[in-house]
Amino acid sequence: MPELYHFEDFAAGQVFVSHEHAMGQEEMIAFARAFDPQPMHTDEAVAMELFGGIIASGWHTAALTMRLLVDGAMPKVAGGALGLGVEKMSWPQPVRPGDVLRATITVLGTRPSRSRPDRGIVSLHTRTCNQAGETVLDHTSAILVPRRA
Amino acid sequence: MPELYHFEDFAAGQVFVSHEHAMGQEEMIAFARAFDPQPMHTDEAVAMELFGGIIASGWHTAALTMRLLVDGAMPKVAGGALGLGVEKMSWPQPVRPGDVLRATITVLGTRPSRSRPDRGIVSLHTRTCNQAGETVLDHTSAILVPRRA
Repeated sequence: MPELYHFEDFAAGQVFVSHEHAMGQEEMIAFARAFDPQPMHTDEAVAMELFGGIIASGWHTAALTMRLLVDGAMPKVAGGALGLGVEKMSWPQPVRPGDVLRATITVLGTRPSRSRPDRGIVSLHTRTCNQAGETVLDHTSAILVPRRA
Repeated sequence: MPELYHFEDFAAGQVFVSHEHAMGQEEMIAFARAFDPQPMHTDEAVAMELFGGIIASGWHTAALTMRLLVDGAMPKVAGGALGLGVEKMSWPQPVRPGDVLRATITVLGTRPSRSRPDRGIVSLHTRTCNQAGETVLDHTSAILVPRRA
C-alpha cells in the first residue's frame, strides 16, 4: 500500500488497528481538570462511591482514540484528513486506571465529494476496546480526503 | 431554580448559555500535540498553506465545549451527569487563534430511564459559536440524571 493515502486508496472493508495505550489515573485526572472537571473524573473519594473509582471523561477517551488513529491506525493522508463529523458516539463501558486501549477503524464506504471535485469522502467506523475486549468508545465518522492528481 | 438539578428540574425548551473562552494558538498546538498531531493543527507553515493558519483539532473544540458546559452553562446535577452518547457532531467552521467561543445548550426533551427507575434521560442540543456568531461545533447528546428521591 502507498505511504501516503489518497481517496482512491481507501475501500470499504479495509481494517486498520492501532498500537496500545495504557491509561494512567494521573493523565485521566489531568485531562478532566482541564476539560471535564466533574467529581467522577477528578475526585477519588466521590468516584469510588459512584463508580468504584475514577473513570475517564468520555472526551478524554475520544481524544486519546484520535491520537491512536493518528499514530498509526489510520494511513497517513496526503495533505491531512479533515474530519467532517461524527455520528452515534457512545461509551458503552467506562475507562478505568490501568486499562489498555486499542482502536480499530473499519472503512464503511467511499464517495466523491459533490462540492469539491478534488476531494472524496471516506466513512469510517471506529471502535476502541480495553484489554478485556470490551468496547469503551464507538462512533462512525466521515473525513474529507484529497483525490490523486 | 434549584442549586442542584435533578431529572425533574429539566424541561424541553430550557436554554443555558456558557461564559466565553478566548482560544489561544499555544493551547491549540499543545492539545493537538497530545491528541491530534496532524500538521494543520501543529505546524504553522503547513497550516498557513492549507487553511490560512493553525486550526484547532475538532476534539479540542469538543473538549473545550465540555469545559464551558461544566463551568456554568449546565446546571450542576446531583451526583453528576453521565454522558450516554453523542449524535451528529459537526464542526461547520474551524476554530482559529483568538476566536472567542461560547456554548449554548437547549434541552430537547426528558424521559424516565426504563432500565434505571432512579434515573432519567435528558436530551440536549449543544452549539458552540465564535465571536462572529458562526457555529464551530454542533451536536445532540443524552445524559443520565438522578431523579429526586
